[in-house]
Amino acid sequence: MNAPAPESEGAASRGPKEGTRPRVVIVGGGFGGLAAAKALRRTHVRVVLVDRANHNLFQPLLYQVATSVLSPGQVASPIRNLLRGQRNATVILGDVKGVDRANRTITFDTPDRAGVAIGYDYLILATGARQSYFGHPEFEANAPGLKTLADAECVRDRLLGAFETAEAEEDPSKHPDLLTFVLIGAGPTGVEMAGAIAILAQKTLNSEFRRIDTGKVRIILLDAAQRVLPTFPEKLSNAALARLQKLGVEVRLGHGAEAVDSDGVMVAGERIRSRTVIWTAGVAASPAGKWLNAETDRAGRVRIMPDLTVPGSPEIFVIGDTSSLDQGGKPLPGVAQVALQQGRFAAGCIGARIMGNGAPRSFHYRDKGSLAVVGKGFAVLQSGGLSFSGFVAWLIWAGIHLQFLAQASLRISVFLQWLWTYATGQRGSRIIIGPFRAPLP
Amino acid sequence: MNAPAPESEGAASRGPKEGTRPRVVIVGGGFGGLAAAKALRRTHVRVVLVDRANHNLFQPLLYQVATSVLSPGQVASPIRNLLRGQRNATVILGDVKGVDRANRTITFDTPDRAGVAIGYDYLILATGARQSYFGHPEFEANAPGLKTLADAECVRDRLLGAFETAEAEEDPSKHPDLLTFVLIGAGPTGVEMAGAIAILAQKTLNSEFRRIDTGKVRIILLDAAQRVLPTFPEKLSNAALARLQKLGVEVRLGHGAEAVDSDGVMVAGERIRSRTVIWTAGVAASPAGKWLNAETDRAGRVRIMPDLTVPGSPEIFVIGDTSSLDQGGKPLPGVAQVALQQGRFAAGCIGARIMGNGAPRSFHYRDKGSLAVVGKGFAVLQSGGLSFSGFVAWLIWAGIHLQFLAQASLRISVFLQWLWTYATGQRGSRIIIGPFRAPLP
Repeated sequence: MNAPAPESEGAASRGPKEGTRPRVVIVGGGFGGLAAAKALRRTHVRVVLVDRANHNLFQPLLYQVATSVLSPGQVASPIRNLLRGQRNATVILGDVKGVDRANRTITFDTPDRAGVAIGYDYLILATGARQSYFGHPEFEANAPGLKTLADAECVRDRLLGAFETAEAEEDPSKHPDLLTFVLIGAGPTGVEMAGAIAILAQKTLNSEFRRIDTGKVRIILLDAAQRVLPTFPEKLSNAALARLQKLGVEVRLGHGAEAVDSDGVMVAGERIRSRTVIWTAGVAASPAGKWLNAETDRAGRVRIMPDLTVPGSPEIFVIGDTSSLDQGGKPLPGVAQVALQQGRFAAGCIGARIMGNGAPRSFHYRDKGSLAVVGKGFAVLQSGGLSFSGFVAWLIWAGIHLQFLAQASLRISVFLQWLWTYATGQRGSRIIIGPFRAPLP
Repeated sequence: MNAPAPESEGAASRGPKEGTRPRVVIVGGGFGGLAAAKALRRTHVRVVLVDRANHNLFQPLLYQVATSVLSPGQVASPIRNLLRGQRNATVILGDVKGVDRANRTITFDTPDRAGVAIGYDYLILATGARQSYFGHPEFEANAPGLKTLADAECVRDRLLGAFETAEAEEDPSKHPDLLTFVLIGAGPTGVEMAGAIAILAQKTLNSEFRRIDTGKVRIILLDAAQRVLPTFPEKLSNAALARLQKLGVEVRLGHGAEAVDSDGVMVAGERIRSRTVIWTAGVAASPAGKWLNAETDRAGRVRIMPDLTVPGSPEIFVIGDTSSLDQGGKPLPGVAQVALQQGRFAAGCIGARIMGNGAPRSFHYRDKGSLAVVGKGFAVLQSGGLSFSGFVAWLIWAGIHLQFLAQASLRISVFLQWLWTYATGQRGSRIIIGPFRAPLP
């Protein structure tokens, strides 16, 4: 079904027209899509950004929502608020369902209407990644992931709920399962969650329970890889491992989870009993590859040309976590910096082509480095030839993350919350929002 | 089923015993229950506070969560955090199901176990009120209320979602229904919500939409009563009405809602088309009256004695919104101040009886006055013989509400958020957390 395209031009602008501005449709308001939209600010185009969330999410701090340091509103900014001053940009809440490459049209659902079609002259797909359970979708019910604000609230409810359930449980033999937390996946999210749960138990909740000893919490971090933070230099993996162990986290490497159910996890034939399992492992690309019927890699990411376009469709750019591009023989990592730089590059290409300067160039990623926090006042940092860990790395981590928050008001409120949490151990949003759930009698 | 009571004493303490501290069980961690628990700090008792939420909710500011000014964590404090320094208090997450007056036992579900029983020497029921649809439970699906944090997030999702849906809707004839907001009930919550939605449309969202004009939003406030804020002096009702009208709110009095469905509301035989209806009308008491098999008033509140106990059970106190007590020929209002003062009074009675000073006294409510906000920088205030409205009343409202927040950290963060919102119109938590919902194709 083809409904009229937005704005008064109707569906006329399927291709560049004299006298009308070309339309650039951006799907996804994450780091990449938002960077592209902003970089098109002074370009003679109309920008339509479609996202199924109303907010840009600062995913690097999502683990702090899940562990109750920050509130959801501190890591998310309304996309239309970020673009409010950009008169050539329209933001639409919609869930994209397909791309018609021949007719240069995308189809999406709005909350009110299914199958809305809109034409584009240029299309930027920046649809990101979602949780992947590596062929085990049945894990999801007992091992929620951490990609959206709703996920983070769900994980927070489970984490805080585990302590509450243990305190309410009069049979102490049931406490160990309730106070065992298993994190599957030892990348940055898993490492940061493990550290944050340890600090939650040791510094925040320690004086508040009467029946349970929060010092007896077990935190188990699993990964099939041979080291934590496998994308970091080995020296930093070792530093992170040592810090995690100092915090009491049990790190088990070399074996992935074989099964996850409501009683816990099976690893290397051993059952780890736990009532709270969190999935911090792999991601899979969005369905952009299917929409385009394009070649994808094993994780479902669209294989793109050096100028970030899809082979055969020079007007379609695919950027960020949903695309796959090799540089120096290695695929680019799925991090915010890649998406940001690709968003700006795609916008620049579109601007150049519209001005008739259009020779396609090659995208080159400038790796500014990586950071991960482990517990309180400790981070690992790698940038260029530099790599070190400790308190100074943590200060740099804090400064960089504050700087990249989308709104000045969030920089202030997150900064103040961090100061408060650092000084007192107290967290900003330690609430269980979900309904009380009792077991069957 | 009788399971052992908490702590090492087992179920032994069904009545006061030599050598053991009497157990005071408090059900509900709202204003009343928390005040009672704190007032028992230095009394030679064990306090067990049971609530099905992990947090004390500052309900007077819940409308600001629903309208995205504040985040849920800014109006809620973990109960066990508030009582962490009080060594004689235990907090249990549990959903109370019944009271056995003869055996002095309550029964509750924990997240892990149904039908846990615990004995008490004194019982304080402070279980509050919930939404009441006055015999029309079918209204609820299309007119959510505002009693819990989950309610507030749901209302926020709907409010913000209505603007998003209208912007995504290409047929302008559908915009009016989407941009009409109906509030059923013109007490403080309805009046405050109406004002906050008006300011949201006029000051926050005004520059952010391209297809819709947020100045064309219709806000309709309904009540069967003849004036808004019917519990306030008539002069203040008139001032609030004038201010609402200045904000563009349509106030319709004298007729309640006859029907609510997904298309809108029927009032006095007229259909008001609206896709967003919010229930800000009546409340009903908790089931405490049923648990006790006690006499209740029409709203289900337990009729209590002047010393706040239930007739026939001098060891059971019922306080706050779930109880009914006349003073000067009129029932006490369902406000925080009554619950607070009753909580302290009940705690004092228990302390006096334990010390053997136990003559029952009469509770006397000291009415400190009432306040309600209308829009930005305007409130109505009544205290003793004093009643006025305007900016000064609003400053007093702000100061009092900050003062009553349970934690110092919240006072600071709410104060800063209010300053920011006042100066810029921006809100702190303008996010839709619920999943994207598309219509059926």
